[in-house]
Amino acid sequence: MSYERSNIRDMAGYVWGEQPEDASQCKLNTNENPYPPSPQVAAALRAFDAAHLRTYPQPTADRLRTQLAKLHGLDRDSLLVTNGGDEALRLAITTFAAPGTPLGCAHPSYSLYPVLAQIQDAPLLQAGYADDWTLPKGFADQANTAGARLTCLVNPHAPSGRLMDVDQCARLAAELDGVLLLDEAYADFIDPALGYDSASLLRDFDNLLILRSFSKGYSLAGLRLGYLLGQPTLIAPLLTKTRDSYNVDAISQALGLAALSDPTYAEDTWARVRQERERLRDGLAQLGLPAPPSQANFLLASVPAAAKPPAPELYAALKAQGILVRHFNAPKLCGKLRITVGAPQQNRRLLRALRGLLCNAG
Amino acid sequence: MSYERSNIRDMAGYVWGEQPEDASQCKLNTNENPYPPSPQVAAALRAFDAAHLRTYPQPTADRLRTQLAKLHGLDRDSLLVTNGGDEALRLAITTFAAPGTPLGCAHPSYSLYPVLAQIQDAPLLQAGYADDWTLPKGFADQANTAGARLTCLVNPHAPSGRLMDVDQCARLAAELDGVLLLDEAYADFIDPALGYDSASLLRDFDNLLILRSFSKGYSLAGLRLGYLLGQPTLIAPLLTKTRDSYNVDAISQALGLAALSDPTYAEDTWARVRQERERLRDGLAQLGLPAPPSQANFLLASVPAAAKPPAPELYAALKAQGILVRHFNAPKLCGKLRITVGAPQQNRRLLRALRGLLCNAG
Repeated sequence: MSYERSNIRDMAGYVWGEQPEDASQCKLNTNENPYPPSPQVAAALRAFDAAHLRTYPQPTADRLRTQLAKLHGLDRDSLLVTNGGDEALRLAITTFAAPGTPLGCAHPSYSLYPVLAQIQDAPLLQAGYADDWTLPKGFADQANTAGARLTCLVNPHAPSGRLMDVDQCARLAAELDGVLLLDEAYADFIDPALGYDSASLLRDFDNLLILRSFSKGYSLAGLRLGYLLGQPTLIAPLLTKTRDSYNVDAISQALGLAALSDPTYAEDTWARVRQERERLRDGLAQLGLPAPPSQANFLLASVPAAAKPPAPELYAALKAQGILVRHFNAPKLCGKLRITVGAPQQNRRLLRALRGLLCNAG
Repeated sequence: MSYERSNIRDMAGYVWGEQPEDASQCKLNTNENPYPPSPQVAAALRAFDAAHLRTYPQPTADRLRTQLAKLHGLDRDSLLVTNGGDEALRLAITTFAAPGTPLGCAHPSYSLYPVLAQIQDAPLLQAGYADDWTLPKGFADQANTAGARLTCLVNPHAPSGRLMDVDQCARLAAELDGVLLLDEAYADFIDPALGYDSASLLRDFDNLLILRSFSKGYSLAGLRLGYLLGQPTLIAPLLTKTRDSYNVDAISQALGLAALSDPTYAEDTWARVRQERERLRDGLAQLGLPAPPSQANFLLASVPAAAKPPAPELYAALKAQGILVRHFNAPKLCGKLRITVGAPQQNRRLLRALRGLLCNAG
C-alpha cells in the first residue's frame, strides 16, 4: 500500500543535470563557474578546526548575515542564509503559497518551480514567456486574478539568460498583490555596465524577496549556500518559523565568510565568464546555432528545425564525446540546448565538437 | 500588510537551546557529545580539496548511503541521507502528513514536532505520556481513530531518556494504520547489552521509518547530517520527490564517510557517556534531584516542588555561573531540568554548582 499523500504520489520529482564524478568530462550542463573558489576559501577550509563540529552551528548564520548585509547595504534583519538557493525557494513557497492557490510563474523557467508547487499541492499559473523571453502582457493582472500569493521569476531568466531591468522589476512588485520573488541565482554574471541593482527596490517594496546564491558566482555549488534579501517583515517568518533550525552547517558559514572576504577574486571570474560568454555566442552563431543575448553564465542555443542532427541527437552525440550540455524535453525548449559558459578551452572543445557533428551530418 | 499564510502567521517558531560561542561555558543544554569527532574526520577535512566545491555534490550521497546500508544490513535503496535529522522529520511530514489531518505524537516530546505540524497546517494528536514515560494505553487506536497518517515517536524518549523496547516498536508498527517514524537521534547511547535493534523490524513493516543522526553519536552536530531507514517504497518519495535536490553538501558527505570509517572511536565515546550517565544520575539523586533511567545522553532531573530554588530559578542560577542546562516551560516539564551528560569534569562542575545552590538556599 502507498502511504504518500495523493499529490506526492501523483507527481514526478525534479530531474537534476548529470553530475559525473569523472573529471575528464567537459561539464557544461549545470551552470557551474568554471573557476575554482577563492584561495581564501581553501585557506578557511584548512584552518577549520574539526573539533568545532561537535557543537551545533550558530542557528541563524549571523556573521554571514552581517557581511551580506554590508555587501548589499541593508540591515542584518533583511537577510536569511539558506542551504542553497533551493531551500530559499522552498521556504518562500511553504511560507507564502497556500495549498490550492496558484503559484505565480511563467513558462518555461527553472524546472524546480513546478516540482515545489506540486509538493505544496498548489497549481501553477499558466503564463508563457513570449518568443523574445519577455513576460506576457498583463502578467501581473493574470497572477492577481488567479489569486497568486507568491510569484517566482528567475532574473536573469533561465534558460534564456535574458535580463529584466530594474524598472520592470519595480513595476511588477508594485502591480502584484502577493510576494514577488526574484530568483537571481545568476545575477553575479550581469554586465556591471548595466547598473542592475534590484536590492535598491527593497526600500520601497514590502512584498519583494531577492534570492542570491554562492553556487555560481562564488564557485561553491558543492557547499550549498544561498540567501534571501527582503524587508524584515518578509524575512522574519522564514528566519524564525519555517526554516529548519540549523539549516546551514558550521563549515558552510565559515567558507561563505571566506568567499566574501575576497571579492576581487570572484569578480575576476565573473568578468572572464562574461568575456567567454560573448566569444561562445559568436562561435555558436557561426555554426548556425544562435542564442539570445544572455546576462547569465549560460546560453540557450537554437538548433534549427532542419538541422542534422536535431537538438536531442546533438545533445546525445556531444555526451558520447564526453561533453555534457542540457537538453529539456519541454515546450519551447526541445529544439534548443542550454550550454554553460565554460573556461576558454572547454568552450573551444565544445565548438570543435559541434562543428564536427554538424558538418559530418550535413 | 502580512503576506504569510494564516497558519504561519498564527504560529511561534521553534525555540532552540542557547548556542554560545564562548568555549568557557559548561554546555550541557543541547545534548551534544562531549568528545570531539574522530581524528579520521579531521583528516578528511584537511584532505578535502576546495576546488571540488565548484561543482554540485553527488545529489543522493550514494557513497554514504552505501556505507550506511552496510552498517545496518540493508540495501542502499533503504537509505536517505539528510541535512540533519530535522530535515528527515520535515520530509516525512511533507510526504505523509496531509494538512488538516492530525500528526501522531505523544506529549511532551521533541519540541520541534508541534512546530513542523503547524507549518504543515496539521493539528497534533493530543496524547500524553504516562508519569513513567510510557505511552498511554490505546495510543495506536487513538492515532488511527484521529486519522493520523504519520506518527513520530522519539526513542529513546526525549526529554526523559526512557527506551521503548523493540517488541513494543513492532506492536506499534503493526497497529498503526499510517507510517511510524521512530526518531532515534539518541540511539547510539543505548546500552548494547539491551540488544536494541529496530532496523531488524524493517523486514516486516512497510510503514516503518527509522531516523538516525551523526549529530550526537558521531560528535558532528555542526555538520548537519542525519539519515532515514525504511523499506524502499517508503524511502523513494522522499529521495526522488520531496527532498531538495542537493540537500547534503560535498564536505558533509566526505566527513560522514570518514566518521563511519572509525567505528571504534565513536563507540568508545558512547561507552564513556554511558558510564558518566550513571555517575551523574547517582550524583543528582544524592542532591535530591532524581532522574529516571536514561538510554540517551541526557537526564531529566526532577526538582522537588518544595525545593529552593525551584527548577526555573535553578536553571537561571546555573546559567549565571556559566553552566547551561535546559528548562522547558511546559506541562510535565516545568519542575524539571534536562541535563546533557558531559565529560567527567563538566559533570563534576555541574554537581558542585548544584550542591552550592541547593545548600545555600536551604
